Amino acid sequence: MAKKIRLGILGGGGDSLIGILHRVASQINDNYEIVGAVFNPKFEDNLAFAKEIDVPTDRIYKDFDTFIAEEMKLPADKRIQVCSVLTPNFLHFPMAKKLLENGFSVICEKPMTTTYNEAKILQATLEKARTVFAVTHTYTGYPMVRQMREMIKSGALGNIQKVDVRYYQGWLNPVIHDKAKRASTWRLDPEKAGISCCMGDIGVHAFNMIEFTTGMKVKSILADLNYLYEDNKMDIDGTVLVRFDGNAKGVLRSSQIATGEENGLAIAIYGDKGGFRWEQENPNYLYVMSDDKPLQVYKPGHAYNSELSLSGTKLPPGHPEGIFDSMANIYLGVAKAIRGQKYNDGEFPTMMDGVRGLNFIESTVASHKNGNTWIKLD
Amino acid sequence: MAKKIRLGILGGGGDSLIGILHRVASQINDNYEIVGAVFNPKFEDNLAFAKEIDVPTDRIYKDFDTFIAEEMKLPADKRIQVCSVLTPNFLHFPMAKKLLENGFSVICEKPMTTTYNEAKILQATLEKARTVFAVTHTYTGYPMVRQMREMIKSGALGNIQKVDVRYYQGWLNPVIHDKAKRASTWRLDPEKAGISCCMGDIGVHAFNMIEFTTGMKVKSILADLNYLYEDNKMDIDGTVLVRFDGNAKGVLRSSQIATGEENGLAIAIYGDKGGFRWEQENPNYLYVMSDDKPLQVYKPGHAYNSELSLSGTKLPPGHPEGIFDSMANIYLGVAKAIRGQKYNDGEFPTMMDGVRGLNFIESTVASHKNGNTWIKLD
Amino acid sequence: MAKKIRLGILGGGGDSLIGILHRVASQINDNYEIVGAVFNPKFEDNLAFAKEIDVPTDRIYKDFDTFIAEEMKLPADKRIQVCSVLTPNFLHFPMAKKLLENGFSVICEKPMTTTYNEAKILQATLEKARTVFAVTHTYTGYPMVRQMREMIKSGALGNIQKVDVRYYQGWLNPVIHDKAKRASTWRLDPEKAGISCCMGDIGVHAFNMIEFTTGMKVKSILADLNYLYEDNKMDIDGTVLVRFDGNAKGVLRSSQIATGEENGLAIAIYGDKGGFRWEQENPNYLYVMSDDKPLQVYKPGHAYNSELSLSGTKLPPGHPEGIFDSMANIYLGVAKAIRGQKYNDGEFPTMMDGVRGLNFIESTVASHKNGNTWIKLD
Amino acid sequence: MAKKIRLGILGGGGDSLIGILHRVASQINDNYEIVGAVFNPKFEDNLAFAKEIDVPTDRIYKDFDTFIAEEMKLPADKRIQVCSVLTPNFLHFPMAKKLLENGFSVICEKPMTTTYNEAKILQATLEKARTVFAVTHTYTGYPMVRQMREMIKSGALGNIQKVDVRYYQGWLNPVIHDKAKRASTWRLDPEKAGISCCMGDIGVHAFNMIEFTTGMKVKSILADLNYLYEDNKMDIDGTVLVRFDGNAKGVLRSSQIATGEENGLAIAIYGDKGGFRWEQENPNYLYVMSDDKPLQVYKPGHAYNSELSLSGTKLPPGHPEGIFDSMANIYLGVAKAIRGQKYNDGEFPTMMDGVRGLNFIESTVASHKNGNTWIKLD
Repeated sequence: MAKKIRLGILGGGGDSLIGILHRVASQINDNYEIVGAVFNPKFEDNLAFAKEIDVPTDRIYKDFDTFIAEEMKLPADKRIQVCSVLTPNFLHFPMAKKLLENGFSVICEKPMTTTYNEAKILQATLEKARTVFAVTHTYTGYPMVRQMREMIKSGALGNIQKVDVRYYQGWLNPVIHDKAKRASTWRLDPEKAGISCCMGDIGVHAFNMIEFTTGMKVKSILADLNYLYEDNKMDIDGTVLVRFDGNAKGVLRSSQIATGEENGLAIAIYGDKGGFRWEQENPNYLYVMSDDKPLQVYKPGHAYNSELSLSGTKLPPGHPEGIFDSMANIYLGVAKAIRGQKYNDGEFPTMMDGVRGLNFIESTVASHKNGNTWIKLD
Repeated sequence: MAKKIRLGILGGGGDSLIGILHRVASQINDNYEIVGAVFNPKFEDNLAFAKEIDVPTDRIYKDFDTFIAEEMKLPADKRIQVCSVLTPNFLHFPMAKKLLENGFSVICEKPMTTTYNEAKILQATLEKARTVFAVTHTYTGYPMVRQMREMIKSGALGNIQKVDVRYYQGWLNPVIHDKAKRASTWRLDPEKAGISCCMGDIGVHAFNMIEFTTGMKVKSILADLNYLYEDNKMDIDGTVLVRFDGNAKGVLRSSQIATGEENGLAIAIYGDKGGFRWEQENPNYLYVMSDDKPLQVYKPGHAYNSELSLSGTKLPPGHPEGIFDSMANIYLGVAKAIRGQKYNDGEFPTMMDGVRGLNFIESTVASHKNGNTWIKLD
Repeated sequence: MAKKIRLGILGGGGDSLIGILHRVASQINDNYEIVGAVFNPKFEDNLAFAKEIDVPTDRIYKDFDTFIAEEMKLPADKRIQVCSVLTPNFLHFPMAKKLLENGFSVICEKPMTTTYNEAKILQATLEKARTVFAVTHTYTGYPMVRQMREMIKSGALGNIQKVDVRYYQGWLNPVIHDKAKRASTWRLDPEKAGISCCMGDIGVHAFNMIEFTTGMKVKSILADLNYLYEDNKMDIDGTVLVRFDGNAKGVLRSSQIATGEENGLAIAIYGDKGGFRWEQENPNYLYVMSDDKPLQVYKPGHAYNSELSLSGTKLPPGHPEGIFDSMANIYLGVAKAIRGQKYNDGEFPTMMDGVRGLNFIESTVASHKNGNTWIKLD
Repeated sequence: MAKKIRLGILGGGGDSLIGILHRVASQINDNYEIVGAVFNPKFEDNLAFAKEIDVPTDRIYKDFDTFIAEEMKLPADKRIQVCSVLTPNFLHFPMAKKLLENGFSVICEKPMTTTYNEAKILQATLEKARTVFAVTHTYTGYPMVRQMREMIKSGALGNIQKVDVRYYQGWLNPVIHDKAKRASTWRLDPEKAGISCCMGDIGVHAFNMIEFTTGMKVKSILADLNYLYEDNKMDIDGTVLVRFDGNAKGVLRSSQIATGEENGLAIAIYGDKGGFRWEQENPNYLYVMSDDKPLQVYKPGHAYNSELSLSGTKLPPGHPEGIFDSMANIYLGVAKAIRGQKYNDGEFPTMMDGVRGLNFIESTVASHKNGNTWIKLD
């Protein structure tokens, strides 16, 4: 009845962190079996890695085209159902597109594509394909992030009037100040990373967090980006002013030179009836504020939480949820969708989230280049 | 080369939390494949559950004796190598004993047995069997707990002079105050749970945490336990004074009526050169204190951590580790041991930890019954 | 109408920390004017200090006897009304006694006396004198400590079933491990400090915190104290098991060798309806727990607080209260009492608190010396 | 030798919070005696209040002009030396100006004036007067804020590359959503509060915090302000992008509709060698980050702190400093200056801080009105 879903993996071999994250997450809820892959560009590495993690080698393919060709020869009940795309950014678009065109479901790492235009093409492709497509905005899988979304939807904060999101990391700090290192890091190379470093890599997660939690669309943005050396013009830091419909405003701050910060994604949301504060590094604490009552601290797994939040909690309160749980929750949502089971809106980020992300990244860079002017999002 | 280890599971079917925890943890590091099981006492439930989580049903056995008999007929390279024992407490001993006698390795939930005497018998059995045996004191798998152990071993705190450990939960509070509920809860029934509720269930984790982190043995204890109603004499709260060799002393506090506490295991350790504070609910923060320097906060995944700590971290700093990671780290250690690979002392809790635990539980109850007198541990 | 109260000070000259604390606190609410003093044992130091802090020198006396003799010659409306006793411990008793006998009110540092017997004599003296007497258990002046007391009184926690209090400091750690220093520190000298170091100095604050917040009396105790060197037998660490009427139990932990701890007084209280956690180092956060609702964080100055709590808050929420505020709140309570104004029970610690403290200290040492047996408090 | 400084007070009568704060702070370090005042506009209130707090009434004047006239008749060694200006904003300028012209020192509440032009006139007046002038940017008095300044000055963070400051409050939230209340609140009335509500009241503290801690000057700003109702056009929320010389950038966020926030001033500063995080509501914790070492937590009163930080700590570590301590530290600095004693740069905010503040406020509003364009600060 609950036969495991046949999962294929593209990329993520060796000690790729993103490979580990997806592989672990896919195994957490007894839903997926890895049956085929192109883990590495070189076939011998690919095979060696499959052996190392003990995945059968009969469907380890030499390249992506062979993957598609061979899988399409298999009968539907043997063929891979969903494929995780963990390759370098510029490959996301062609791979995802071809997968969709051949009827596969897709779990795609972010950024979904390298341009907004590609994102819109992919969106059109999905409309024809009618399969399941998820972009891994992993942080939306945390139970307390889901709780924010549901509480806002039910009116707990009233009308949203202010949103403040931050994503600060420090790991690029020693890279950017070393001439040789900054010249050889792919994230700082526009050929490989696309139009933006900081906004494309982490700012877009912050942007997604705003729209996921509030259920509101950002209508226009004004950006000021920063770079530190003349020989490298990819943004490594920036602030984006955002406006919603009505009088709500906000600010998005993102930096990769916030020296000593680890993975500092955090959000504060204020409505006329209450406010929220949440931080990714302590993901099990949701602070709920109001004008006149004591601060409340919501934690996962309690009966007072929403159904969407509880669907992402496997153990009782006090057993810390980690990043694997968060990603696993997204895989769980995708599994429900593939199996045609009922699931809540918000259980996994859809292609629309990917499209919005690219719209945000390109607009941010444009605003900065225009001399910090307002740009409307589509 | 890294062929997956063949894992059997006893108990943990349905929505057993401990079943989920072990199953997820076993899958996290690409080391185990579940090939056989007796998930439930009733064979039809057992089969249904295997189908639900899509485990092949050919080695789902009708009971434990059949499990042993059938597995022993298989050639060594097909036979289950290690078996997780997740059954009710009183079954741990007979199952673990028979598994060891038949040459299986064992991952056993705690308490390892229900009496100290059984624990010593099991220890003798293991000495003959020479297989791998782990007791799942899960919390020792956290990277920062491992870091404490290694830093103490390397002398970072100097001579330990004071240890203070706490394990406070509140979930039994509404149970204990309801006459019907307290009469029907298995943990409060000595027939099912053994000699102790609070100390047997959670106090023993606190005890293990002391010995794991400090590397010191508790030499004697004095206990004061508490119960609230005449109709139920199982301890639901207690404090244990502890003494080590030399002048070091400590205190262990454990309660299941700490209303509103979730899973509040915490430890503070003070030596003549420095001190530590750590809490399970925020497991990625290790506070390191000294006489004259600023407080330091150690976090997982940084190069400044010990090898033992880093072996339990899969992602970069700032990606929160959760309880699944912790249990997965123990499964990883067991996998290394089964494969005959090099591993660090401390990568999984051994039978000795189980034996010490039972010694602690029985001594604690004896001290209380004697009118709060000191009892030497063996 | 609100003429300032005439305050005398005994001790606390030079850079005495306790002198600064009392002097600042006395000035915070516009209630006291320092009009006379014996700040230092030597008259010239005494005068010099008075000039340094610009207190008129006409009532700076050469010793305590002169202080009494000269003040008694003054008419009642010029005479000092209340005297702060900040001298070394062994002088508290004779000074406080004589002050009371001559009709002065007294604000006495703790420990109130050096023996329980003296404490009872002083109590009898006060009964005759009928003036105002406060012992400065400073920490009871914090708004959130007062809030705990009032919430417990109003039944917010239901029946108290468990109390856990801690007072950990590390500053004696480098002293105790240095032979010369430990031989020359007055707190480690029974001649000067009395029967106990750790329990007498800080354990007694923890004891007072239990009784102040819960409104319950500790009925009996069992203590285990610790010392580290044969050449010094004053306790520098200890744990005390406590019992109340009914089934409530608790534990009091106190240490001066908790390396790296600053001034770590903290309390957790659990009733059948809820629980509290509070820490002196972050005194403006009161954590309120229950079985099934989100954790609540109470902070000072909000309308949801009790009258007793609000009486100790001068500014709006978010303006941190510090230790001076806490002591100032006690001075404010004493001022109200001296002026015959209405005040709430709990606004300042009374002689009864001092008497209980000495009963606790002596019983703790006796329990330890008896081999860790239970001792009933009076 | 250390004769108390003669202090006059203008404003701050009744239960004015700012009156309490200044009065308490002035008494904390034994430096000031209040000898004259105009507490209230009505003379009878003025006298009544003086009696209530027991200040001699002989130099309680009926108005400011009388205050000046009468004090100038007194010989220099009786005359008030310094005057605290706590009146409504629009009176700061004329009072401060006349005080300076008559040779008084001044402690002025912020905003120093209501326009940048007035600020510059006042600056010129001070240059002639050559007395002491302080603006009470209270938060610069916290020991850990001072520690940031000194560590940055000594190069601990290397070159500053990013500054992020926040000042969020929620108390105006219920006011702004109530038509009658928002029409009658002086802060929301440009006639009384000047050109700006949020930036003028709290944003300017955030601005001062940037310049105080980093020692850098903000060179230009781009602002986006917010208001929620057509019938009230005073800003109650806003974000300001800031640029320094070189490549350093930053962001200043300020809101009075951050529902549930109390007094949330916080700053994060990142240099190429390290980073800081500090929050006003927990002012005794300074978080010091680096690329590769554990996070460090600096606390007040330890020997590892700078001289400037230690000058603001009166008690040992672990005794929480509060807002009164912070303001008292500023009064202490002013006292040193008045007495001609040596003091460190940074012990009190000078007129230059006031001038910068007005420059900031006016530029912020101008940037917003220009459609969010960059404005250079002088």
